[in-house]
Amino acid sequence: MAGSTTGNRFQVTTWGETHGKAVGAVVDGCPAGLELCEEQVQAFLDRRKPGQSRYTTKRKEDDRVEILSGVFEGRTTGTPISLIVYNTDQRSADYSGVKDIFRPGHADYTFEAKYGIRDYRGGGRSSGRETVGRVAAGAVASRLLQECGIRIVTYTKAIGPVQADESRMDYDEISRNPFFMPDAGAAEHAASYMEELMRKQDSAGGVIECRIQGFPAGYGEPVFHKLDAKLAQAVMSIGAVKGVEIGDGFLAASRTGSENNDSFSAQDGRICKRTNHAGGILGGISDGSEILLRAAVKPTPSIGREQQTVNRDGEETLLRMTGRHDPVIVPRAVVVVEAMAAITLADALLEGAVPTMDKLKRIL
Amino acid sequence: MAGSTTGNRFQVTTWGETHGKAVGAVVDGCPAGLELCEEQVQAFLDRRKPGQSRYTTKRKEDDRVEILSGVFEGRTTGTPISLIVYNTDQRSADYSGVKDIFRPGHADYTFEAKYGIRDYRGGGRSSGRETVGRVAAGAVASRLLQECGIRIVTYTKAIGPVQADESRMDYDEISRNPFFMPDAGAAEHAASYMEELMRKQDSAGGVIECRIQGFPAGYGEPVFHKLDAKLAQAVMSIGAVKGVEIGDGFLAASRTGSENNDSFSAQDGRICKRTNHAGGILGGISDGSEILLRAAVKPTPSIGREQQTVNRDGEETLLRMTGRHDPVIVPRAVVVVEAMAAITLADALLEGAVPTMDKLKRIL
Amino acid sequence: MAGSTTGNRFQVTTWGETHGKAVGAVVDGCPAGLELCEEQVQAFLDRRKPGQSRYTTKRKEDDRVEILSGVFEGRTTGTPISLIVYNTDQRSADYSGVKDIFRPGHADYTFEAKYGIRDYRGGGRSSGRETVGRVAAGAVASRLLQECGIRIVTYTKAIGPVQADESRMDYDEISRNPFFMPDAGAAEHAASYMEELMRKQDSAGGVIECRIQGFPAGYGEPVFHKLDAKLAQAVMSIGAVKGVEIGDGFLAASRTGSENNDSFSAQDGRICKRTNHAGGILGGISDGSEILLRAAVKPTPSIGREQQTVNRDGEETLLRMTGRHDPVIVPRAVVVVEAMAAITLADALLEGAVPTMDKLKRIL
Amino acid sequence: MAGSTTGNRFQVTTWGETHGKAVGAVVDGCPAGLELCEEQVQAFLDRRKPGQSRYTTKRKEDDRVEILSGVFEGRTTGTPISLIVYNTDQRSADYSGVKDIFRPGHADYTFEAKYGIRDYRGGGRSSGRETVGRVAAGAVASRLLQECGIRIVTYTKAIGPVQADESRMDYDEISRNPFFMPDAGAAEHAASYMEELMRKQDSAGGVIECRIQGFPAGYGEPVFHKLDAKLAQAVMSIGAVKGVEIGDGFLAASRTGSENNDSFSAQDGRICKRTNHAGGILGGISDGSEILLRAAVKPTPSIGREQQTVNRDGEETLLRMTGRHDPVIVPRAVVVVEAMAAITLADALLEGAVPTMDKLKRIL
Repeated sequence: MAGSTTGNRFQVTTWGETHGKAVGAVVDGCPAGLELCEEQVQAFLDRRKPGQSRYTTKRKEDDRVEILSGVFEGRTTGTPISLIVYNTDQRSADYSGVKDIFRPGHADYTFEAKYGIRDYRGGGRSSGRETVGRVAAGAVASRLLQECGIRIVTYTKAIGPVQADESRMDYDEISRNPFFMPDAGAAEHAASYMEELMRKQDSAGGVIECRIQGFPAGYGEPVFHKLDAKLAQAVMSIGAVKGVEIGDGFLAASRTGSENNDSFSAQDGRICKRTNHAGGILGGISDGSEILLRAAVKPTPSIGREQQTVNRDGEETLLRMTGRHDPVIVPRAVVVVEAMAAITLADALLEGAVPTMDKLKRIL
Repeated sequence: MAGSTTGNRFQVTTWGETHGKAVGAVVDGCPAGLELCEEQVQAFLDRRKPGQSRYTTKRKEDDRVEILSGVFEGRTTGTPISLIVYNTDQRSADYSGVKDIFRPGHADYTFEAKYGIRDYRGGGRSSGRETVGRVAAGAVASRLLQECGIRIVTYTKAIGPVQADESRMDYDEISRNPFFMPDAGAAEHAASYMEELMRKQDSAGGVIECRIQGFPAGYGEPVFHKLDAKLAQAVMSIGAVKGVEIGDGFLAASRTGSENNDSFSAQDGRICKRTNHAGGILGGISDGSEILLRAAVKPTPSIGREQQTVNRDGEETLLRMTGRHDPVIVPRAVVVVEAMAAITLADALLEGAVPTMDKLKRIL
Repeated sequence: MAGSTTGNRFQVTTWGETHGKAVGAVVDGCPAGLELCEEQVQAFLDRRKPGQSRYTTKRKEDDRVEILSGVFEGRTTGTPISLIVYNTDQRSADYSGVKDIFRPGHADYTFEAKYGIRDYRGGGRSSGRETVGRVAAGAVASRLLQECGIRIVTYTKAIGPVQADESRMDYDEISRNPFFMPDAGAAEHAASYMEELMRKQDSAGGVIECRIQGFPAGYGEPVFHKLDAKLAQAVMSIGAVKGVEIGDGFLAASRTGSENNDSFSAQDGRICKRTNHAGGILGGISDGSEILLRAAVKPTPSIGREQQTVNRDGEETLLRMTGRHDPVIVPRAVVVVEAMAAITLADALLEGAVPTMDKLKRIL
Repeated sequence: MAGSTTGNRFQVTTWGETHGKAVGAVVDGCPAGLELCEEQVQAFLDRRKPGQSRYTTKRKEDDRVEILSGVFEGRTTGTPISLIVYNTDQRSADYSGVKDIFRPGHADYTFEAKYGIRDYRGGGRSSGRETVGRVAAGAVASRLLQECGIRIVTYTKAIGPVQADESRMDYDEISRNPFFMPDAGAAEHAASYMEELMRKQDSAGGVIECRIQGFPAGYGEPVFHKLDAKLAQAVMSIGAVKGVEIGDGFLAASRTGSENNDSFSAQDGRICKRTNHAGGILGGISDGSEILLRAAVKPTPSIGREQQTVNRDGEETLLRMTGRHDPVIVPRAVVVVEAMAAITLADALLEGAVPTMDKLKRIL
């Protein structure tokens, strides 16, 4: 499977460069009969739109998605769903200065090392704009999950060192602040922190948390394709992500077995767990409790400060970037993490649909 | 692709239950002409063997690997390499008590939820013994990497809260202590910590770190199959792993762009980086510097203490486990992490071998 | 892998319905540095264009292809190449009569059986128009092969019972007659045969032959992914194809070993074969001689004659089709067979690029 | 996916050389709860056993299969099923004469061209013995199909030019003659034909036909993974197969649309077809009628007659083979074709299990 395709039954292929004609995605394998319209996909794309606050790039990306295939009379037909967003605001001139220079923290050098050629305008395929296709496809996956009674909540857990407080968590707050934090106080601190950084022409990273509720027990493939392994791949495949945790993550490593084990209990004849350190996955298979994952997002590598680097001829040089960059990418990446989780879970639902002869016979 | 197969060009399929007749792996796609013998694979398996210290299970697993195919006159032939290890020390009686009980922290419940049936003897396929196949296959991958001048160093970074000190790191220490820590002092603290836990019939987790040296720049597939994404999947697919980091990982999330960016420099006409916060991967493609990853391993869920749980009928019950368990799995998991990294990198080398028309023509 | 994606390293995904907004393909994994422009792709599409003779549909499909991504300054960049063709001539009204009727020989009934819903306008995704994406992607594959010195010749071997004569074969004739036959006399007979059939409101099938010259020895993966097996899948996946042969095909079944074996000889130190009954493939791996395959194309199922059938309610009914249909699809399918062969061979070249440690090391 | 693995949900990996220690297969993805025992697999293997008549090799292959994993208390558990057959009768000496010689019609030369090395003893991985793994895996697939009410009948349609007569077809005859032909008279002619050939130290090929009854409508993935395309790949991947037909196959190419279209009818409220020229598949999706496929098997390339060939140094030489070879491989290949059909159909059933939201919700 080539690099821009993921998923086995719910399969997503994305394409497009930041300064090409368009970006898009093809979703193949979505079951027939799902209600789907452009507005639903657009709502997802709007969540990653820049220019919504002073903490994201002022670049205008008035992304309008079109569904070109796979939907007939308002429902999916089971055939590939082609989603396209034409690129509108491309100021190629902004990037001419970096044509022959490898920007620190970016993939300019590695794309050149691999392909010998690269679309240097704004990072080409390694630009954050590549995530438009992910988000459009994630919107379709989210529709599928929604129909199955599954709900995803994603938010910013931390902006740089400023953490949302577990005890003050309020999901209603998420849409009320520019950082999509579930804690109003933390969002205010994050704003002060960002103002300071922006004065210094510097940038911030952060942590994104994603919670999936209502996902049934018994999904995920053992061994190499464990549900947590697929989620880790999906989330780590987002450009700026440097770490992934399931449940308690690294904290679990410092705990003892008696602290970390989630004991089972029975409620109204249904088996559940008293705690959820495991984050909803045991042995790579969902256990019916909330699935919880976290992604560490590195600070935006594009900063106004002067940086040391080299050019294509291997000569050292200084670089001062002047384009319109996000001082923090985390708020716009929230929906990208959610999209990748949704795509992974939709695929897991379809892949794991008939694990037994009983289920196979029931459906024939 | 089914759950027990991973890789695209260097493809590994594992099979076998802890109390079945045997466990094994099939490696398909290994290039022809690689020198390979059973002793090389055995050396890897010996590193995961239990009973080497008082901190691992006393269960005897005298695993002897046999190569059944794919090697002729001491070299691989390009055809599937079948590796088998017969199970010898299976005391099924030990597990009869848990036949109908879901052990906390184990996959008993989720396997039952998925498959409706499970080999309850020692966890069946969800047992740590499943990693025998991974390690055997990883030995083949390591041979391939070695031939290409690539070296992997893997060790225990932390046992519970006891961390190896970056400033005292000495790779020679790794094989001198039962925890495979590169810091003798930390290993002593870890021993005390474990003694205390074992008295309390409790268990510990830890952190494993893996460093890959000499891996060339320009490998890894952009977007969904980024090199870091594939490493994250590979490592998270190990049963007890709950978190994965590349380079600075979660620490990067709290840093600023100017702190986190690795500036490029030129040394003897070769482009390199002054620092390596990125852990050797930019935009999902290797950048030629050391690849660095970390895995958080949860504490062994099997503990001697009494635990609350439920049985298959959904009735609450108390469980006291009496089998021979590892009070800490981390030392034995070190080689498993290394194996998964090796498999992933071998596949990346083959997948990314001809990214350009120039390379394709050069090889025709 | 979902149904509309094929290939492993040279991976093609197609999408689009005959009466949707557009049809297209995404090619991922094409090596960087290949010269590619829209005119080259257009030239392929023009070969499948209808309305070029009285023996194909009068429907106007003025397909203009656009490259939306993956090409920069006239060369491929290694990133996905998105190809789009907007649908222009859609007379939905033509098809309203068959909305609730299952046309014999078409996939109306099976799509309904599978998906419960279908885009009934012109067959939707099961229309021959689905091949636009194949041909566009095949044009890219052909460019790659051409750069590697590989040439493909494809032509009509038979129209209904009218066969091209092996002894009169002249490739220059192919483009001179509306059937793309390499035998002018046979083409004339085919024209008479078609006139007669068209008077009877009936349709014809035929046989397409494809020859690949210059393909190097040593490509193709043994066992399940043999080169002939992949070619068979590729060609049989074209809607109307009902049989595939490699080399002598079914004729070989009636021959003896001494007749059918191709003996090896040495010419100027190069190993070659005295005959080519095998069609260039031995044990699933190319042997360096011409690769030869044949596809049996069934007669167009859309005919003017009255036919018995049933509607969605399971009631028997009579159907008389009035749309604009191809009395014979074979001439337009020639380039589709060539495209599928090219896609398969491009993938085989990339998949099989480094079968040995020697080749791997040479390229590092 | 590497060469020795096939299938997506019902995934089969085979391994092993004819003169290695063992051959085997791993079946991953088989649903849990299927009754399976070694005798059932053995029964399949016995059908490909040589030495059952004077028309197959006198080599003794007393293949005994062992199930090493994936079955617990007589039922599959959903985990990989490892099947192994140890090689017993290996007379390496027989083959020393061909160590440096490329046998005509065999894959010696192409394996050498690809891998630079080959296990020359009996063809290594390109030997017909590779099919042991296919047949063992096919036995598991057949059990699955059987449970779903699907039945496969496979037989020899022709030995060389001697064809079974459609009008005298009697399935009960299949097991009564050494050729597995459903026509006693044709079997007698085949015997005479073979005697003559054997006197001349020559060999024969033939045609195998496979009929699948009870396979439900609505399975198979459109476009590249059509059910007929997957069957074509599966059957063409058998070493000696040079052609594949679905339904009327090549005959359809010479017919007219009005002759070839199968008209639909309604019987007891169920939609069916009056004829079955299509062979049970329309648009790549099963239509509920009998699936019919045919494979052309080339004559055994190993013959006693002297043949011209070359050695590894590219020198021309004469070869007279003395080993124990099958004068006709067709009877032993019947169960191989059946196995490949069964594997393909089992995979199609699982892949296509939830094509609609309705089915997905029904099973959650």
